Amino acid sequence: MSFKDICVAVNDSKASVFVNGKFCKDPKLAKADDFFASGLNVSGNSVPQLGFAVKVVDVNNMPGLNSLGMSIVRADLEPQGLSPLHTHPRATELITILEGTIYAGFLAPDAANIFKSRLFSKILNPGDVFAIPQGLIHFQYNVGHKKATLLASFNSQNAGVVIIPNSIFASDPPILDDVLAKGFQLDKKVIEELRKKFS
Amino acid sequence: MSFKDICVAVNDSKASVFVNGKFCKDPKLAKADDFFASGLNVSGNSVPQLGFAVKVVDVNNMPGLNSLGMSIVRADLEPQGLSPLHTHPRATELITILEGTIYAGFLAPDAANIFKSRLFSKILNPGDVFAIPQGLIHFQYNVGHKKATLLASFNSQNAGVVIIPNSIFASDPPILDDVLAKGFQLDKKVIEELRKKFS
Amino acid sequence: MSFKDICVAVNDSKASVFVNGKFCKDPKLAKADDFFASGLNVSGNSVPQLGFAVKVVDVNNMPGLNSLGMSIVRADLEPQGLSPLHTHPRATELITILEGTIYAGFLAPDAANIFKSRLFSKILNPGDVFAIPQGLIHFQYNVGHKKATLLASFNSQNAGVVIIPNSIFASDPPILDDVLAKGFQLDKKVIEELRKKFS
Amino acid sequence: MSFKDICVAVNDSKASVFVNGKFCKDPKLAKADDFFASGLNVSGNSVPQLGFAVKVVDVNNMPGLNSLGMSIVRADLEPQGLSPLHTHPRATELITILEGTIYAGFLAPDAANIFKSRLFSKILNPGDVFAIPQGLIHFQYNVGHKKATLLASFNSQNAGVVIIPNSIFASDPPILDDVLAKGFQLDKKVIEELRKKFS
Amino acid sequence: MSFKDICVAVNDSKASVFVNGKFCKDPKLAKADDFFASGLNVSGNSVPQLGFAVKVVDVNNMPGLNSLGMSIVRADLEPQGLSPLHTHPRATELITILEGTIYAGFLAPDAANIFKSRLFSKILNPGDVFAIPQGLIHFQYNVGHKKATLLASFNSQNAGVVIIPNSIFASDPPILDDVLAKGFQLDKKVIEELRKKFS
Amino acid sequence: MSFKDICVAVNDSKASVFVNGKFCKDPKLAKADDFFASGLNVSGNSVPQLGFAVKVVDVNNMPGLNSLGMSIVRADLEPQGLSPLHTHPRATELITILEGTIYAGFLAPDAANIFKSRLFSKILNPGDVFAIPQGLIHFQYNVGHKKATLLASFNSQNAGVVIIPNSIFASDPPILDDVLAKGFQLDKKVIEELRKKFS
Repeated sequence: MSFKDICVAVNDSKASVFVNGKFCKDPKLAKADDFFASGLNVSGNSVPQLGFAVKVVDVNNMPGLNSLGMSIVRADLEPQGLSPLHTHPRATELITILEGTIYAGFLAPDAANIFKSRLFSKILNPGDVFAIPQGLIHFQYNVGHKKATLLASFNSQNAGVVIIPNSIFASDPPILDDVLAKGFQLDKKVIEELRKKFS
Repeated sequence: MSFKDICVAVNDSKASVFVNGKFCKDPKLAKADDFFASGLNVSGNSVPQLGFAVKVVDVNNMPGLNSLGMSIVRADLEPQGLSPLHTHPRATELITILEGTIYAGFLAPDAANIFKSRLFSKILNPGDVFAIPQGLIHFQYNVGHKKATLLASFNSQNAGVVIIPNSIFASDPPILDDVLAKGFQLDKKVIEELRKKFS
Repeated sequence: MSFKDICVAVNDSKASVFVNGKFCKDPKLAKADDFFASGLNVSGNSVPQLGFAVKVVDVNNMPGLNSLGMSIVRADLEPQGLSPLHTHPRATELITILEGTIYAGFLAPDAANIFKSRLFSKILNPGDVFAIPQGLIHFQYNVGHKKATLLASFNSQNAGVVIIPNSIFASDPPILDDVLAKGFQLDKKVIEELRKKFS
Repeated sequence: MSFKDICVAVNDSKASVFVNGKFCKDPKLAKADDFFASGLNVSGNSVPQLGFAVKVVDVNNMPGLNSLGMSIVRADLEPQGLSPLHTHPRATELITILEGTIYAGFLAPDAANIFKSRLFSKILNPGDVFAIPQGLIHFQYNVGHKKATLLASFNSQNAGVVIIPNSIFASDPPILDDVLAKGFQLDKKVIEELRKKFS
Repeated sequence: MSFKDICVAVNDSKASVFVNGKFCKDPKLAKADDFFASGLNVSGNSVPQLGFAVKVVDVNNMPGLNSLGMSIVRADLEPQGLSPLHTHPRATELITILEGTIYAGFLAPDAANIFKSRLFSKILNPGDVFAIPQGLIHFQYNVGHKKATLLASFNSQNAGVVIIPNSIFASDPPILDDVLAKGFQLDKKVIEELRKKFS
Repeated sequence: MSFKDICVAVNDSKASVFVNGKFCKDPKLAKADDFFASGLNVSGNSVPQLGFAVKVVDVNNMPGLNSLGMSIVRADLEPQGLSPLHTHPRATELITILEGTIYAGFLAPDAANIFKSRLFSKILNPGDVFAIPQGLIHFQYNVGHKKATLLASFNSQNAGVVIIPNSIFASDPPILDDVLAKGFQLDKKVIEELRKKFS
């Protein structure tokens, strides 16, 4: 929620206190560049293991977004590239395919049985749009034969991202073995291997 | 604000009552297509006078957006094509340039003198992103030599659009001449001509 | 949204950082005067060209309004005086006529054709109340033979005001001629004259 | 929160179901009168015992206020007339004095001792404005020698009103005697008398 | 509303300015203890006159609650112990009985006559849950023969509490006698006695 | 957000349309039982494989919670019983231990590397309180030698629950093998086994 026409964030990385959101610059000092970012025409740095690259424009690099409730991401996926199962705790996501063929889906709890879920998925081609409700687990996977590119917009200046397998198996400190072994119905030895793979 | 994992709108156009937002479908009947739209890979129908075309994906044609707080628009501008001065009463806008060269800007009231304003504008090229705060007047204009295309996302399922010149001069019924002549410091004859041009 | 019983703003005009909203005073130092303002019994300073005067009570001069989501304005209009076409980006407005006869209206986009709008207008007399939805263009005009006075309340501590003709033609820097000429279907020479009139 | 330009309430008093807020009329059928009410130039019906009269404009008699988050009340107080201790559970109140002299105040809990409170009060004259934070107990009392009139605006379409003494002593069914006697440190006989006075 | 995964409050009691809510710690310095509090297994300090004790966990003693919108309270009531008529201006309350037998109720204004109210009350036993809407007057009273204990959760990090009789009769400065005498229909002498009892 | 003092949900399970949230009962028909639920003094039905039982009080079985923004759950864990990794997409959770010894934790993304996370965990004993921010993955595990019981309150009338392993491996239809195998760095055969275990 905004209380001002303009509330450009100041870089508070050296400040000893922080606010929820960001402090604002003196509005007189705001300039067009505060509402501007570039570079979504090229891919971000790839995570080779996943064949997946992201480039983020949010309040951290576009300070004018402070209090405006939006951000945007470009994602590139190599063939068989994967944006693994993840959630955004503070935003709905709306994706638009620019290039390639992507299999995308989200999981909604099954109202009749919370230990099950329903998968809502689509094969998406250029110009297709797909919505992912706030907080639900989702993924994007390149099922085509060439690179795929999408833009994902979010209704938060800082949507957050929780990558499910990595958050769980590469946490610091690690979660107690028993919790993971029992929760995933896997042997503790497998849990230990997963920890190694993700660390 | 969402109270359910899924709240797909029903088509209530024939219903005798409406809600703020939309009614929800029985969640059991929700399907992936409710969260899907296509066609943002091609331009919408052009408004020839302006050299401008839009294609909208919002809660009216993607019912799954109900209660999710997002929508998206593709805009295409011919060279010298214009998305004229307008506002969105219920959303911030975040634009990303896909093709071409666009001069975009918004007007923020001048805190020291409400009868003046500050223009925040940029020349934008592919991959550039620009943010427009909720409710502020803005425009996009193709200053390049070929077609320009952008995606604009909004943090509302139904952002609304108020096109300034047209709303004012093509209203039904018309606004009293005195109000327009005095407000715009134009002769009533000019006001009358403007009404004809915009009707 | 408020998180405290009392969050009186401090005068942060000399601070080097600002917040969205305002910082709060130590609640122990809050006093009744922080929730008090005077002077709405007399007219503000008039803008002679418009025959229009306003006096504002918002978080900037009543610090107790910080986080409370309200403000109020007194407007006085000479006969033929005009509060020109304007919007409030962050608030709905509710006006009550105290004296005189006012023609007031707002423009709502026409759902069937976004290049048109519907005018909702009324002639208002003392004791009449009229509501103007957030972000929609509106005006008030004195159609009587004596001074008219109204109170306008807002559901924001800092509603913002965008005066349409002035914002557009008296912006700093100016908007590119082509954008205005094409958007308003006016000759560039007329645009230039309008800029002079409003500067 | 509004999702539409216009969401005029329908009269649902005979409907078998209700919504939080109100259903909307078909926007095509909305008219200026939906955003209009009259009569705040004259006093409402007086409650003789208190020397106090109110006239309310909220979503129940101005259907256009649906989803807009505002309402307004005119209150008239005879000399020694009292708007007794009350709260509004869903809105902040901003009062403006039109005539007369009013002693107004609100009680804020004392952070150091929740069994105490701080009184924020002012003597108010025409043109004075006073703010009352959401949910806090407050009153207005005519300390002048002639009738006093004020306008009170609220940031809710339906602010609610809880009149403290009457709610407590004229509830149906009555609150257990012990609760009232112990809470107010009064004899049960006094409680019984108070119940009679307020019923 | 939260804009960050973690926004742990810093102790700002010595700061010269305050925010609505609290400043955040550097997220890197957040620790599990910021989201932890202990001691709800034992009763708080009793207010002997009322036979009532509370222990509060809110943003003031659990800094991790900052921006999360929740708090919790343990209340213990001796037989005939009373949590007197009070409201929470910024939160709904949900109580769960752990031990004993409690008579709890809230007052909702009567839509047909604002000078009356409806009492919604229940006798509650262990495992029973009762909801109290934001801002409405309510109480809890031990009608059993042994100590009663309940947990009350709130959807605010700082719900606020206004204890009706005490706020009114132990305010600093006192409310004008006339306001209380007329509002409660009590003799000024009784008002004076009440002030003494509550001070 | 609430617009009424009382907005009790009607059972709309057989209605052909739904709203976001629920329809309200005629307020005149609301009764104390609408704000009441019982049974949190005993355990819910256990999920034997996990040694875990829950009992939920939310808007679906306490209709008075409609629009009030709260719900509550009792959870019981056998020794080594587990509430497996899960998230609540629409609420923060605040847990209070009633009996036993529980190891609880949540995962917050590591700001420096989104492929890692930080675990915030505590061993909790009776009377301890622990907060879990909205949308973050968390768990509770009984590390003691006897049954453990906790109450968990939520700031949503319908918080939602996404149980991570089950949602992922027991979805209908299943997620493409490649997505799971690559995301979890597991052999497809293992994925197949996990699907069988969770179905």
